[in-house]
Amino acid sequence: MPAYTPPLRDMAFVLHEVLTVSESHPDLDPDSTAAILEEAGRIARDVLAPLNAVGDREGCRLENGVVRTPTGFRAAFDLVREGGWTGLDCDPAYGGQGMPYVLATAVGQMAAAANMAFNMYQGLTHGAYSAIHAHGTEEQKATWLPNMVTCAWTGTMNLTEPHAGTDLGLLRTRAEPQEDGSYRITGQKIFISAGDHDMAGNVVHLVLARIAGAPAGVKGISLFIVPKFLVNADGSLGTRNALSVGKLEEKMGIHGNATCVMNYDGATGTLLGEANRGLAAMFTMMNEARIGVGLQGLAQGDAAYQAAATYARERLQGRAVPAPEHPDAPADPLIVHPDVRRALMDQKAFVEGGRAFLLWAATLIDAANAGDAAAHGLVSLLTPVVKGFLTDKGFEGAVQAQQIFGGHGYIEETGASQFVRDARIAMIYEGANGVQALDLVARKLGQDGGKPIMAFFETVKDFIRENEADARLKAGFLDPLKAASRDLQAAAAFFLDNVKTPNAVLAGSTDFLHLFGHVCLGYLWARMAKATLAGTDDFSAAKLATGRYYMARQLPATALHLARIQSGAEPVMALSEEAF
Amino acid sequence: MPAYTPPLRDMAFVLHEVLTVSESHPDLDPDSTAAILEEAGRIARDVLAPLNAVGDREGCRLENGVVRTPTGFRAAFDLVREGGWTGLDCDPAYGGQGMPYVLATAVGQMAAAANMAFNMYQGLTHGAYSAIHAHGTEEQKATWLPNMVTCAWTGTMNLTEPHAGTDLGLLRTRAEPQEDGSYRITGQKIFISAGDHDMAGNVVHLVLARIAGAPAGVKGISLFIVPKFLVNADGSLGTRNALSVGKLEEKMGIHGNATCVMNYDGATGTLLGEANRGLAAMFTMMNEARIGVGLQGLAQGDAAYQAAATYARERLQGRAVPAPEHPDAPADPLIVHPDVRRALMDQKAFVEGGRAFLLWAATLIDAANAGDAAAHGLVSLLTPVVKGFLTDKGFEGAVQAQQIFGGHGYIEETGASQFVRDARIAMIYEGANGVQALDLVARKLGQDGGKPIMAFFETVKDFIRENEADARLKAGFLDPLKAASRDLQAAAAFFLDNVKTPNAVLAGSTDFLHLFGHVCLGYLWARMAKATLAGTDDFSAAKLATGRYYMARQLPATALHLARIQSGAEPVMALSEEAF
Repeated sequence: MPAYTPPLRDMAFVLHEVLTVSESHPDLDPDSTAAILEEAGRIARDVLAPLNAVGDREGCRLENGVVRTPTGFRAAFDLVREGGWTGLDCDPAYGGQGMPYVLATAVGQMAAAANMAFNMYQGLTHGAYSAIHAHGTEEQKATWLPNMVTCAWTGTMNLTEPHAGTDLGLLRTRAEPQEDGSYRITGQKIFISAGDHDMAGNVVHLVLARIAGAPAGVKGISLFIVPKFLVNADGSLGTRNALSVGKLEEKMGIHGNATCVMNYDGATGTLLGEANRGLAAMFTMMNEARIGVGLQGLAQGDAAYQAAATYARERLQGRAVPAPEHPDAPADPLIVHPDVRRALMDQKAFVEGGRAFLLWAATLIDAANAGDAAAHGLVSLLTPVVKGFLTDKGFEGAVQAQQIFGGHGYIEETGASQFVRDARIAMIYEGANGVQALDLVARKLGQDGGKPIMAFFETVKDFIRENEADARLKAGFLDPLKAASRDLQAAAAFFLDNVKTPNAVLAGSTDFLHLFGHVCLGYLWARMAKATLAGTDDFSAAKLATGRYYMARQLPATALHLARIQSGAEPVMALSEEAF
Repeated sequence: MPAYTPPLRDMAFVLHEVLTVSESHPDLDPDSTAAILEEAGRIARDVLAPLNAVGDREGCRLENGVVRTPTGFRAAFDLVREGGWTGLDCDPAYGGQGMPYVLATAVGQMAAAANMAFNMYQGLTHGAYSAIHAHGTEEQKATWLPNMVTCAWTGTMNLTEPHAGTDLGLLRTRAEPQEDGSYRITGQKIFISAGDHDMAGNVVHLVLARIAGAPAGVKGISLFIVPKFLVNADGSLGTRNALSVGKLEEKMGIHGNATCVMNYDGATGTLLGEANRGLAAMFTMMNEARIGVGLQGLAQGDAAYQAAATYARERLQGRAVPAPEHPDAPADPLIVHPDVRRALMDQKAFVEGGRAFLLWAATLIDAANAGDAAAHGLVSLLTPVVKGFLTDKGFEGAVQAQQIFGGHGYIEETGASQFVRDARIAMIYEGANGVQALDLVARKLGQDGGKPIMAFFETVKDFIRENEADARLKAGFLDPLKAASRDLQAAAAFFLDNVKTPNAVLAGSTDFLHLFGHVCLGYLWARMAKATLAGTDDFSAAKLATGRYYMARQLPATALHLARIQSGAEPVMALSEEAF
């Protein structure tokens, strides 16, 4: 069972030396931040990580209509709750601690690395909390939020139906208005993460449904709060609502999280936000939710990398060339082999660059929440990149980590397979990565007259210009960043030239997302390199070397993505449907 | 449960119109070949594919020391046996049908696509058959081969020990010579595929062990035949040998195949080949065995692609841009979306190009077996590419296929996850892909003074030269192939220039393998394009369009691999071991 080491030094470096978060958040001074992250890291390492394999092996069980979570989950959830971790960035008016999102992101990265399936119970609750907080009436907020902030009650998001996934306009769940102003909800929802379990007193489902007579398509969808137990006027739990778990899905991974088929049989719900504006209400928090999934991809990449690095240092197999490094041992450790190192460097350079990218995006969320419109525009643009790139690459890193274990990576005993299986879902849910790419090129690029993308280019350009005189940065970091950024601009220009042939844009969407992701990581690596220049310790040296690796071996991928984009729609669309 | 459609038309095209196999194998005339492949395809589709999910779900069970295979496996194995399929390319002297390896490869590709775990029982037997056929005494061959050709008895390969995987020099299993010329084998072997089961009368283990007093390292390893049941002089089964299944491994996939820990407790074995030359004997058939694993990667990519293409045509979700394609339906099928098509084209272009590459390599094996030294050199060079590239890309394709299923791909019901989990092992066993890359750059490139790689370049160059005048091929196929081939030559030149810094070569090994793989598929696509020029049917049109896609969107990856290779060892090796 792989151990997990909280990346405290690295997070402190990114938060304080690269992103200088104390400037905008005086409460995030280095000492307080370190104390919080250290304690969160301790829980991740000592409480959550040891339950990761347990959750995978045992999974959840549906017994007499009730979902049982794996051994130890309940006690761990109590501990997390009691520490106040579930409300870290929640509104103090409802019992939250009101800390910045960037801090919650740092904490969440460790929790999701240690035990992704476990952390989802809280993550989903946070999403539902945010939607109610943004769209609820005062009464709704008072009824639901205090218990959701503490995770005494957990939350879920009910979007998908058997025939309606990405295309929510097709959904059929019905909501019939009642005389008392409530609604009776009837329909079936699938793939409901944390849909039921035995760790909380109530489960607060947010359900998308169609009010009788509503317009067809996405403009006739409303959002409802549909709790497992109705809540009395005095706040106590009332009767069981008419909803049930139809079954638990057998999945590739995240076995510790209950993925439920939820049946609503005339369940009582209340409208959240305006009628027929449910999709907008559900998606208000889309940036945070999607960044939260990008976080999972990164986190699994991190955990898998750590396991692989440990294994590569310990497993003796083969000899260094041209001469053994440990002639007295029966063999050298795997890590002496350049190809093993290459795979580890790929992972390490991604994890550290991705962490900086994630935390940067989180600071933009904080700024946007504080009313900075430019930050809101930029983070909206970057959100599909955070989600799509970090989950694709996190999975890729987990696969590379598993490869380092050789045959031992394929058997479940070592845990390497679990990282791959768990990481896989992050590429799919909360908008499959193809949908992220579509969102990026079809909506976000042209958003606000292209202001956000222009702002991004300016940000990168300014950074290059300001530092170009520094020879320590120029050849290793700024020149490759400039080339990559030019590829991104050329791709955007190609889309602009082809704006009247949508397929030419859409055929390049995934490549564009990856191209963009590389430029973001390249930019953050350049910023990190600059921040290490003053340092003389091993950490700084390793950081610089890892960054140089990224710029030399990963960033050149931008040219390939550009070439694919510029090949246009024809190769992609040439075949008839029957020819597949 | 995904259906499997045997790619009969495509195989006939590759075998007869591209590789013109009838010229060197008159018995492989189009009619006979078609009849054989049709029947093999029928079995794959109707018998093996329906058992694929069963095997995954039930797995194998160890009951009272005996391994039980999943429901239906035994009946299917009987059927395959009775059809004579297990001995298709085996020596007629021992009951085989003496057909070319290329035909067995075509048949095997379908069987491995339909049910990889099932097909391994036969595949391992074939490997053991080949080793005994090549190195056995007349008595050994007479004792073992007839029953192995029919799979009345199956075979295994016992290499790995808990502390010795890639580095077989570390292995500790002991062989003590007995007065009757036999050996007593003692030790533990792990990851033994098809190590035991209930589908055959005997299991013939080929076991690497160290004879008492043998030199240390790989030069002191011998190969032994160690059967589950000893065989009497009259050929009847005798007493149970002193070996047992310690446990079955819990794995990520191929659950239908029994991966055993084998304990040898003074088991009786006979030496196969010369003492202390066991590794060489085991690896005589390395090219075939590794090509057989490349076949698995391709096959899983094929099966997953077929499932994804079917799903993309049937699943209604979203609308084509700018106008719906099926305005009367609630939504358009997934396949209208350019990004879905891109993913399908990636898979299709790989599967068809990979199939041609695989079958070409198989024809080289046939030629080598017939004494053609140049073919032997070339296929030795290409073997790590077939193994590494087809398994890496087959897995990647399976992941892309799973993505097309969205959330439905993550639940086990649809079968998309199984393709990913099963395909994953092919990148690991029979020499992990990093070891293939090492073999390629450290051994095969310089083999025979570089003759094979020069021959490969000449082959590609000749093809380009012979066809350059044909405008239908030049821009779409030959120019990209020329550019890619130049990248490969530049990479080889970089290695040559750095031959005194082995790490610079080794750090680029995996990129070189992929670069090489792309050039091979590009070459085969160009040959396929040429072969379709005369055709006017839909098949020819689709083939050309798919090839153009490969050349435009996949082949440009060679430049990225070259850039990485040319960045040399420094970025890869800069960090100290402690910094990981």
